[in-house]
Amino acid sequence: MRAAVLHDGRVVFRDDVPDPVPGPGQVLVGVRSCGICGSDLHFAAHGGELLSLAAQMGGPTDVDLARDIIMGHEFSAEVLEAGPDTDTLRPGTLVTSVPAVLSAEGVIPIGFTDRAAGAYAERMLLSAPLLLAVPNGLDHRHAALTEPMAVGLHAVNKSGIERGETALVLGCGPIGIAIIAALQVRGVEPIAASDFSPKRRELATTMGAHQTIDPAQGSPFDTVAPKVVFEAVGVPGIIDDVMRRIPSGSRIVVAGVCMEPDTVHPFFGIAKEISVQFVYAYDPMEFAESLRAIAEGDIDVSPLITGEVGLDGVSQAFDDLADPERHCKILVKP
Amino acid sequence: MRAAVLHDGRVVFRDDVPDPVPGPGQVLVGVRSCGICGSDLHFAAHGGELLSLAAQMGGPTDVDLARDIIMGHEFSAEVLEAGPDTDTLRPGTLVTSVPAVLSAEGVIPIGFTDRAAGAYAERMLLSAPLLLAVPNGLDHRHAALTEPMAVGLHAVNKSGIERGETALVLGCGPIGIAIIAALQVRGVEPIAASDFSPKRRELATTMGAHQTIDPAQGSPFDTVAPKVVFEAVGVPGIIDDVMRRIPSGSRIVVAGVCMEPDTVHPFFGIAKEISVQFVYAYDPMEFAESLRAIAEGDIDVSPLITGEVGLDGVSQAFDDLADPERHCKILVKP
Repeated sequence: MRAAVLHDGRVVFRDDVPDPVPGPGQVLVGVRSCGICGSDLHFAAHGGELLSLAAQMGGPTDVDLARDIIMGHEFSAEVLEAGPDTDTLRPGTLVTSVPAVLSAEGVIPIGFTDRAAGAYAERMLLSAPLLLAVPNGLDHRHAALTEPMAVGLHAVNKSGIERGETALVLGCGPIGIAIIAALQVRGVEPIAASDFSPKRRELATTMGAHQTIDPAQGSPFDTVAPKVVFEAVGVPGIIDDVMRRIPSGSRIVVAGVCMEPDTVHPFFGIAKEISVQFVYAYDPMEFAESLRAIAEGDIDVSPLITGEVGLDGVSQAFDDLADPERHCKILVKP
Repeated sequence: MRAAVLHDGRVVFRDDVPDPVPGPGQVLVGVRSCGICGSDLHFAAHGGELLSLAAQMGGPTDVDLARDIIMGHEFSAEVLEAGPDTDTLRPGTLVTSVPAVLSAEGVIPIGFTDRAAGAYAERMLLSAPLLLAVPNGLDHRHAALTEPMAVGLHAVNKSGIERGETALVLGCGPIGIAIIAALQVRGVEPIAASDFSPKRRELATTMGAHQTIDPAQGSPFDTVAPKVVFEAVGVPGIIDDVMRRIPSGSRIVVAGVCMEPDTVHPFFGIAKEISVQFVYAYDPMEFAESLRAIAEGDIDVSPLITGEVGLDGVSQAFDDLADPERHCKILVKP
């Protein structure tokens, strides 16, 4: 089959990838849409560092970046065929799934190892018990955005933010935008959002921000006194800057993935009793809730989609995503 | 009157400090005991840096370190005389108070500026509405430890720790010990505690730790998998080390005051969804609760007290506190 694979840090198109064969408990699906995620870009550019950091925490050390890895974990797909002794949804059903497969060794994340191939491919294997049917005739392109929107929902849930508390979202890439959407669904007001890019600020407003700020014109903290700051930028220095400027007793939710070592002043945290909650991913209930919110129209994800490519266009799309004025979310349609 | 004053970074004994005169709402008290706190040592050694960091956060900039500052904020005292039009407790009553005075300009912390003198002196001024009578005939030396024990109680309250969750306390100085005492009162089990000093580990056991660890023999995380880590060391590097080693989903409560910039890997926080709660001080209810716990015997603070000095011995005591084998808490008895 055709697929876009990560090989030695580069995304390469191949038309000779072996077709996956479903085993017991598995379902072969045909990928309809797959979003390109910032963590795919990170993993392609910094896979070695990431694996080294993971190893320091006792994480997996068996990932071989010299072998082909099929990334892609924001997908919708059509059921093709179940494995032996496996009950599943009718062939042709549009589905999505948390990007993980069940195995005797545990849960394996999809799209970051060669043990569970991702959706930058014509076909892939999913675990039958994890499939969610896409409801309401929702467009497969929109269903593919269930995953990033679940990341935003989870960040908002972990923040414990309540109506009446001011939220400030720093960075309006896909994660920042997903956070804004989840805040809007929850009825939080005001939602302030900050980004250097005019296009991204415009998108933030479309998705529910009440106020947008260009940080080139001055610190967002000059105009907003937030109770909860969602950090969705992920560059060194930003956590310390937020700790320096945030009001006493505030909470910081760190959703931006900063891979580098970072410098902070614990004194700021102590003097202001700041809480820093790092967040990652979502739980299966949040994933299902995110699909429901999109399918029922609580969140319109269409403004996020700024481009569509085939499997042979993934490599170029990785480069194009560097420009926030042009792109937010590019979908791959195998 | 006699007092030990901070002058240009050094503690100096003086016998010619003007006697304080109570104004409206104020009460003149005679200090009975005052504990020497680690933050006093910090402030003496690093006052300039501390004020510079505070100024970066928009804090007060009117503190003049070239003027005499009377420190001391862990005190018990005897009521001597109320100011004009001020109702208060009977003269001779043993009292304590949160270390702050009320003024038209707001609440002024005691012992860190020349606007509200501390208890390294024969006499001082307190705010009548903030006085707490010391109950149960509690020894004035023990009552003076209300303040540091309240710091521990507050850290435990902010952690949200529940029975059945394993606690690990890093550093068994007065704050670490106060945290252990508060955990023991709450019935948390097991409480593990780590310190390089054998004396401090012994004290930790006396105060309620079920297990102590010498970090020179290996990381505490090799033997304990805590749900909540209380960081009461406050040196650069320790937060990152905890983030690297802590189990997924754990909470870190940072009670150690690290004044220097510090390096962390946000990636560890994200990959494990760590929560970092910085804590500072306590609220008035926690302060009162701490006094009650000591007076009713829930916490025996006597093992913490390792020395007593007069006002002319404060400077030497500051030096002596550098040795954890000899000292935990030194009381000043004017």
